[in-house]
Amino acid sequence: MKITDKISNFAKQSRPFYSFEYFPPKTDFGLENLYSRMERMANLEPAFVDITWGAGGSTADLTLEMSGKIQKFFGLDVMMHLTCVNMTQKSILEALTAAKSHGIKNILALRGDAPQTSESSPKADGEFQHAKDLVAFIRKNFQQEFSIGVAGYPEAHQESGGDWRRDAHFLKEKVDHGADFVITQLFYDAKAFLRFRDYAKEIGISVPIIPGIMPIHNYSRFIKFTDFCGVAVPDSLKSRLEPIKSDDSKVMKVGIDHCVEICEELLSAGVPGIHFYTLNLENSVTEVLVRLKLTEDSRERKAFPWRQATTDGRQQTEEIRPIYWSNRTASYLARTSTWDDFPNGRWGDSRSPTFGELSDYHLLRSGRSSTKAREERKEIWGEPINETELYEVFAKYCLGTVDRLPWSDVGLQAESSPITETLVALNRAGFLTINSQPQVNGSPSTHPAVGWGGPGGFVFQKAYLEFFTTPAKWKALKANLKAFPSMTWQAVDFSGDYDSNMAEGAANAVTWGVFPGKEIVQPTVVDTASFKIWRDEAFDLWLNDWAYIYEKGSPSRKLFERVHATYVLVNIVENDFISGDLNRVFQGLV
Amino acid sequence: MKITDKISNFAKQSRPFYSFEYFPPKTDFGLENLYSRMERMANLEPAFVDITWGAGGSTADLTLEMSGKIQKFFGLDVMMHLTCVNMTQKSILEALTAAKSHGIKNILALRGDAPQTSESSPKADGEFQHAKDLVAFIRKNFQQEFSIGVAGYPEAHQESGGDWRRDAHFLKEKVDHGADFVITQLFYDAKAFLRFRDYAKEIGISVPIIPGIMPIHNYSRFIKFTDFCGVAVPDSLKSRLEPIKSDDSKVMKVGIDHCVEICEELLSAGVPGIHFYTLNLENSVTEVLVRLKLTEDSRERKAFPWRQATTDGRQQTEEIRPIYWSNRTASYLARTSTWDDFPNGRWGDSRSPTFGELSDYHLLRSGRSSTKAREERKEIWGEPINETELYEVFAKYCLGTVDRLPWSDVGLQAESSPITETLVALNRAGFLTINSQPQVNGSPSTHPAVGWGGPGGFVFQKAYLEFFTTPAKWKALKANLKAFPSMTWQAVDFSGDYDSNMAEGAANAVTWGVFPGKEIVQPTVVDTASFKIWRDEAFDLWLNDWAYIYEKGSPSRKLFERVHATYVLVNIVENDFISGDLNRVFQGLV
Repeated sequence: MKITDKISNFAKQSRPFYSFEYFPPKTDFGLENLYSRMERMANLEPAFVDITWGAGGSTADLTLEMSGKIQKFFGLDVMMHLTCVNMTQKSILEALTAAKSHGIKNILALRGDAPQTSESSPKADGEFQHAKDLVAFIRKNFQQEFSIGVAGYPEAHQESGGDWRRDAHFLKEKVDHGADFVITQLFYDAKAFLRFRDYAKEIGISVPIIPGIMPIHNYSRFIKFTDFCGVAVPDSLKSRLEPIKSDDSKVMKVGIDHCVEICEELLSAGVPGIHFYTLNLENSVTEVLVRLKLTEDSRERKAFPWRQATTDGRQQTEEIRPIYWSNRTASYLARTSTWDDFPNGRWGDSRSPTFGELSDYHLLRSGRSSTKAREERKEIWGEPINETELYEVFAKYCLGTVDRLPWSDVGLQAESSPITETLVALNRAGFLTINSQPQVNGSPSTHPAVGWGGPGGFVFQKAYLEFFTTPAKWKALKANLKAFPSMTWQAVDFSGDYDSNMAEGAANAVTWGVFPGKEIVQPTVVDTASFKIWRDEAFDLWLNDWAYIYEKGSPSRKLFERVHATYVLVNIVENDFISGDLNRVFQGLV
Repeated sequence: MKITDKISNFAKQSRPFYSFEYFPPKTDFGLENLYSRMERMANLEPAFVDITWGAGGSTADLTLEMSGKIQKFFGLDVMMHLTCVNMTQKSILEALTAAKSHGIKNILALRGDAPQTSESSPKADGEFQHAKDLVAFIRKNFQQEFSIGVAGYPEAHQESGGDWRRDAHFLKEKVDHGADFVITQLFYDAKAFLRFRDYAKEIGISVPIIPGIMPIHNYSRFIKFTDFCGVAVPDSLKSRLEPIKSDDSKVMKVGIDHCVEICEELLSAGVPGIHFYTLNLENSVTEVLVRLKLTEDSRERKAFPWRQATTDGRQQTEEIRPIYWSNRTASYLARTSTWDDFPNGRWGDSRSPTFGELSDYHLLRSGRSSTKAREERKEIWGEPINETELYEVFAKYCLGTVDRLPWSDVGLQAESSPITETLVALNRAGFLTINSQPQVNGSPSTHPAVGWGGPGGFVFQKAYLEFFTTPAKWKALKANLKAFPSMTWQAVDFSGDYDSNMAEGAANAVTWGVFPGKEIVQPTVVDTASFKIWRDEAFDLWLNDWAYIYEKGSPSRKLFERVHATYVLVNIVENDFISGDLNRVFQGLV
């Protein structure tokens, strides 16, 4: 979707938006971590995200790859940066053609800094002198294919000698050449932005001007950066930071406070939205949005409990997904990317499943095979050599001290927090939980944790739990289940030995919503057909996402191989979403 | 469906069934009344109903017609009686062929009494001597097309001289010739039945033997009938009836008490079900079933809130209906009988609706045009000459003192009783209600009034109200509606002038259920497309089902013509089924 359309949608609803900027990380493992972080931040429902273009196109391939993958797998609209300094028209044309083929609809057209070169290397001339040339070039070659953003400098570009009025006139030229909106350089004084914005309007700039904000994370980096960009730091901010400058966590706290204040001033002055320079960091921006109460209505923007894809066909027709991949959305999107309709013949005929290969997903998560990745994973997960140690890793994931597991690209979902203690106890007792959702009985559709689908509706969930456990524990649990006829369940081991009290081919709606003037929406189901596909993926992850980091023949490797070969994967739905209690079935076992 | 299959389904669930017998009325108007009564009694969910065959085929055409229509329009399985005395093989063949073409799968094969003839008219010989000949004839000519029932005489047929054992052997012959089950003659002493049943088993009758029960409604008729049939009346029953025999209502009460006692004895002795000779009466049988608590689980037998059709294709694929016809099911079934799937392209393209003509429905309700029908309607509805008098007719319908209106083939639904007072007040204030359902928030699916869909689920309803009112009142109400954004509504007048806050083509689920291991079931909707069809039918009824009974030019006729030409038809849904209150929108107007 074009950002210009998004901006006018938000404006129609008198609601400010926000967006996040990221840069391409230096390593594969860093990229994998950033993808996880972006998936978590996607839950904040930014209007769009943007990916920077390394100086002189130094990260061009990665920027393009990231932009494409985010667009395809994360349900986010992407704006790709593009700088023209030192680039040929041919290379710009290639970059834009690639962007178009990835479904990208938004380009931030920048002049960019010349790459830092050693004195002896000759400086390339390039075919573009100014950002306005790039804007004109995109419009000429791609007409309305892209929505084009440009940069504004409220306190003047570092090369303009501090004359911000002169910079406003440069901005006017960029808009006149075809730019659709403006995102500004960071600033720490709202007055500077507002002065610039008002002047820009005066001289005839009528496109939206979006303030760019960067929370302060670290004092020395902050000083260095504001110096470099020629951005003024108000004395009041300086005096708040000076006494605590050596304490990073205090600096971050003051940074958040200041960021909230400046955003409040901007919002009350009527800016259409706020663009955050995240520096690939997560906590400050999240905290700022929570404090501004902007995330509270973010749920209203979600049509379904899961994020819809941004690719055209999918967005319009996908209304239902199996629950199994809810913590591995990218894998689900990758494996179903060839589908024409959703669900594909009710998730395909089980005899000839049309789910794609898991390997497609590994292309996205490419950082797992490096030695560094193995070492970092060992650091996170340790080297359990017996089941008690293994169970503790799962317990720590529920407690938040282990930030991910192979079965979850993101951390524990916020909505699961009310059942954290229960989950920890289950895992320590050998029921290794990999997916769960709590019961919800008619919460407003705008509920901050469980809401979706727009205002005026009510949402419901059946409690769901999915876990690995030993055959012996499963046998005992299955005996308990007889006393709970309101629960439906499926169990399967590595060899495919399957048992269930569900009807073959059944689909159990576990998340649904009731809205004014509409039929019931039921976006999440537990079904028998796609469970067969998920089963293979879930067991595979024991070996290919975890065991592989340990030496062949090592005690840890042997433990995981044994778990993979013997454990049973079980899911249970408590169908009584009104007064049922899924946990009761574990009585005597935990 | 074959009764034999039904019986074995009930047996599998260890649940007794019950069934109702009716006879063809003498007049068209009587027939129309009986249809209404049968529709109400259909809500008790009998396993089947049967229609008698007048002596010597005297009602053959009507029996066939009724059997066919009930099967098609009332969602009931029908057993057609067929007697062979005085019938030729050709006429029997014709009757069975007609029954088959109506989709009837069950025949009660009887010998029948010879028609009463004057002494001078010669007695016809006929080609069948005994019921067993008819059974054999059906089997020979139709193989397994029909499930065949025969009659059993626990106290011996009146022509057998009181030897019930001899009659049991006659019964054995009928079964040996191909009968699938037995329904007995009425009796008032359970011991007589059980003795007969046990003996029948002893001599090798293994098919189900169903006791036939007739509640006592009137003393003199009871005595005459038991005398005629040679049925014993236990002394204890006689002594209870004797002192009150001249008080019909007391007799009926004792009759119900006795009926409950005898049924309890039969059920605890393991009979598969009970067949009621209703004499076309409603109250005693209903009361007996309630007292036996047999209707409590009748809701469990309903797959949907509305009764499914018994015709094959429809039963398997129909899962959703518009709410408008909920009190005129036969009309809906008639007008959609040509559909191949349900809904038909979401109720058909509004430009080329495929709903059938209303006139097809009039073929079913054929009693309306006779002078007698007009007079009886006048008796029920009076001759209102102004709006106050008209409004009072609607109020009385809600109070139950007027038993039907053109917009309702049946009386007020039981589930509406909690809102009776509200409805009465609305009607007296000029909001002439023709359809409504109360709010339901997660009642168990076995709830006696609102449950459906089988055990273990939860059912929901949005409050719904549909009414006619004056343009002025509608204007005031529409102003009120602005303050209630959770309500969706449609309004239309005779000329087709339409107003709504629903999206064009929208369908609002107003009844839905959540069941273990299934997707959400949403069987009733308020939609915009079929409302256009319903609108025509609803306005038409003012003239063709009501105004026509008054003289042209009379004050009543003029009143109705004016109402038809000026009133607005409105429906409102309160989408907040949790804490909404539809009635609040009428504040200041009632």
